[in-house]
Amino acid sequence: MTEPTAPLRFYDLCAADPAVRFSPYCWRTRMALAHKGLPFEAIPWRFTEKGALAASGQGLVPVLLDGERVVHDSWRIAIYLDEAYRERPTLLGRIVGRAHARFTKDWTERVVHPLIARLVLLDIFACIDPRDRAYFRESREARYGMPLERVVIPPKEGIAALHAALAPARATLEAQPFFGGDRPSFPDYCLFGAFMWARGVSALELLPDPEDPVRRWREGLLDAFGGMAREAPRAVTSAAGS
Amino acid sequence: MTEPTAPLRFYDLCAADPAVRFSPYCWRTRMALAHKGLPFEAIPWRFTEKGALAASGQGLVPVLLDGERVVHDSWRIAIYLDEAYRERPTLLGRIVGRAHARFTKDWTERVVHPLIARLVLLDIFACIDPRDRAYFRESREARYGMPLERVVIPPKEGIAALHAALAPARATLEAQPFFGGDRPSFPDYCLFGAFMWARGVSALELLPDPEDPVRRWREGLLDAFGGMAREAPRAVTSAAGS
Repeated sequence: MTEPTAPLRFYDLCAADPAVRFSPYCWRTRMALAHKGLPFEAIPWRFTEKGALAASGQGLVPVLLDGERVVHDSWRIAIYLDEAYRERPTLLGRIVGRAHARFTKDWTERVVHPLIARLVLLDIFACIDPRDRAYFRESREARYGMPLERVVIPPKEGIAALHAALAPARATLEAQPFFGGDRPSFPDYCLFGAFMWARGVSALELLPDPEDPVRRWREGLLDAFGGMAREAPRAVTSAAGS
Repeated sequence: MTEPTAPLRFYDLCAADPAVRFSPYCWRTRMALAHKGLPFEAIPWRFTEKGALAASGQGLVPVLLDGERVVHDSWRIAIYLDEAYRERPTLLGRIVGRAHARFTKDWTERVVHPLIARLVLLDIFACIDPRDRAYFRESREARYGMPLERVVIPPKEGIAALHAALAPARATLEAQPFFGGDRPSFPDYCLFGAFMWARGVSALELLPDPEDPVRRWREGLLDAFGGMAREAPRAVTSAAGS
């Protein structure tokens, strides 16, 4: 077994409450590190602390630090972890498995993230550090081409749109327990990260149908690794959370 | 190299002109057999010839015949071919690769097929054998819950919807040449089969933007295996075809 010389560390987006971690991309990395069974420390980081990431040559999290190695981007981090810790459980499989994983990642980002954003963007804005708010508003309003308040739609409508868009994931999770087959793999953590993004900042139940295979799958991953995700602190005061 | 004792055969949906083959699922199998480098014969089959498939225990094509073996369902056929002809180029990769491939297949069926149906369903109806028409109309109207004529929408609208839905495929094909990575694999043939379905029966260009990475990828697969797909007969009399 390849052993790291010290716990791995990664910069992990946090809310005004530094215990609350809600980035979907950082959740991928957190789940990936747990999957590999690697000890890690998640360093709280705020949107505007670009300087802390200078060694990575860019300004977005997650950034992984493994001894001297600095790796950014959750996809590249997953590849790095598989290559550096080859004898530990695989995240992506072999060459073809990694190539096939890419589409689930891209689908999550292009289809699922925008739909979840329409449900939780104002909750994110409400819970981030006040110092991050101007940056968040400007960067997101440029991305969506409208004020944050106009991106967000009524929950009922947004949840129905999400349910419809998840149809292909539902088909896969009816055919096999995980995107990775009998065990979760990195594509599972990509889609799961999207749900953790919402869960960190909102009490809204995005998958209200208890019979939905996507919900059953999500509940399983909330319980994985000793309930790591289920027990994660949330910036949620309402009682509606699960 | 494992060698088949005789050319493999499969039942392949045909139009009134038996040279025209347009089933997206049969195209997956045809591309898969070419990918494996296996000699094959595609037996023309019409929707209502259920008796010919009796050995498979069900009534849909493709059905593969390999000596004594009878395998139905394009996904199961791909798995069979990889297992029976292990030393030939892989379609699905290993265990994790196969699991990861499933989502692209399911997304093609749940998202892409319904959008293409709205563009070509009446073209299919027009080109199938007159003996198949009642079956086709009844089964498809039951599936869509409306007359065929109401499923179909104006091309401009349908092509725009397809373009939007292909966003995640576009992202993947910007990151790597094929869903399979540097080489095509079964997920490529799943999405490609959807385009061959339309191409067999319609002169409509579904990917009009010459800079679209999805179009570039499709053109490459049309040329694969000596131009097998590009040279396939089409039930198209209009001059608008590519």
